[in-house]
Amino acid sequence: MTTQELIAQIKKKKSFLCIGLDVDLDKIPSHLLREEDPIFAFNKAIIDATHHLCVAFKPNTAFYEAYGLKGWKSLEKTIQYLNNNYPEIFTIADAKRGDIGNTSTMYAKAFFEDLAFDSVTVAPYMGKDSVEPFLAFKEKHTIMLALTSNKGAFDFQTKKINEKEVYKHVLETSKSWKNSENLMYVVGATQAEYFKAIRKIVPNSFLLVPGIGAQGGNLQEVCKYGLSKNIGLLINSSRGIIYASATKDFAIKAAEKAQELQLQMKQFI
Amino acid sequence: MTTQELIAQIKKKKSFLCIGLDVDLDKIPSHLLREEDPIFAFNKAIIDATHHLCVAFKPNTAFYEAYGLKGWKSLEKTIQYLNNNYPEIFTIADAKRGDIGNTSTMYAKAFFEDLAFDSVTVAPYMGKDSVEPFLAFKEKHTIMLALTSNKGAFDFQTKKINEKEVYKHVLETSKSWKNSENLMYVVGATQAEYFKAIRKIVPNSFLLVPGIGAQGGNLQEVCKYGLSKNIGLLINSSRGIIYASATKDFAIKAAEKAQELQLQMKQFI
Repeated sequence: MTTQELIAQIKKKKSFLCIGLDVDLDKIPSHLLREEDPIFAFNKAIIDATHHLCVAFKPNTAFYEAYGLKGWKSLEKTIQYLNNNYPEIFTIADAKRGDIGNTSTMYAKAFFEDLAFDSVTVAPYMGKDSVEPFLAFKEKHTIMLALTSNKGAFDFQTKKINEKEVYKHVLETSKSWKNSENLMYVVGATQAEYFKAIRKIVPNSFLLVPGIGAQGGNLQEVCKYGLSKNIGLLINSSRGIIYASATKDFAIKAAEKAQELQLQMKQFI
Repeated sequence: MTTQELIAQIKKKKSFLCIGLDVDLDKIPSHLLREEDPIFAFNKAIIDATHHLCVAFKPNTAFYEAYGLKGWKSLEKTIQYLNNNYPEIFTIADAKRGDIGNTSTMYAKAFFEDLAFDSVTVAPYMGKDSVEPFLAFKEKHTIMLALTSNKGAFDFQTKKINEKEVYKHVLETSKSWKNSENLMYVVGATQAEYFKAIRKIVPNSFLLVPGIGAQGGNLQEVCKYGLSKNIGLLINSSRGIIYASATKDFAIKAAEKAQELQLQMKQFI
């Protein structure tokens, strides 16, 4: 998917909501556990109920890998279902990968070719040659961690190199990488005041913003400082939407929660 | 596996070699492509031919994920084969994971419980709460990136925060984390002179050292600066061993290459 197609979808749906599919068998409604593939059954119901309110779905690979082969199969079925039924949706493999060049190429093949996601999240620690293999894929997007939403963000990301925080170096340095136009960045919503400085470095890039809801981030604050002229934000909510109810009405309740956020977003578009 | 058991194995085999199982279907002998599971067939032959010369095997998850469900199945069969037939071997899932706490817990379950690896590699960018969930597992080891073997290591890892390189901050900070005795570190062999400074920070920790062979690192140099009183090194070679030959003698040739390294290592034990 091109960035222009993503922007068009945002304007049409008046939403820049991304729904995180972090499926934990201990948290989904118990009646689904009788299904052949409970994870996929859960995802399918959530996707069908909310696809018109959001522009992106983001399965977090950890939650699939934890169930081994079965989990990987559920992930495969989920992305296939999305690509077959809702091709306008932007899909994100939240995988936080990154390794030496030949290995990153294999990860890129896994997520862009084998699973056919539109994008994948990556970690910046290993630098340019660990990320460029992802950037080489046309009409695919690489979403690199910049400033994350967890407490550990303050361990290294906000420490200063030559008077400038590590995450700012990451943002600036990445702009010189080959095919850097295919980069987006992860910026946590729990630190809305940081968006101002970030927008000075990457005024137009899309930012994937986790931390709304369960992690305590504030949507109004993020929009105030984070919006670009083409919106440029994908606001993610996972647990706050998908676990809104643990009974048979879970998909309806998830849609209600998604709509609450979409209605707040509408005013910014 | 406990660290003491790993050390005992090293002393018994007079080897601290780790063999990386980075299996690329374009590089393995063509006759194996007729097998039902060529990746596992390749791994099994390599493992059977070399297990007495090394102390660890390290499948790199990217090379399995790139083949989707089939690849994940090959990974599962490989680790099961290792655990069932060579329980003394230290197993490393080279996955370079790391995410917010609840997600890292899922990754830890995937690699320590579902697949039953002894250890997993993780990235430090997201800090303490992204790594501690891995450290909570008893008799399991978390191998964190410190200084990697690729060119991109110089993009961020060697930049200075308060006169001290980022990778040194990573090493020092991690020592205060809960269950930090379960930490090992990735330190690239291509930069042997760095080992001296690293050993000042982590004198006894095990270091997983990639970059010998295909990436140009020098074993003698690494040992000179990197050995601890309990060896404390796992030297990895992947391509240099497993692709020593692309014909039917591939396992024999791999064993020859492994033995070359083991004979060099012997003199240090």
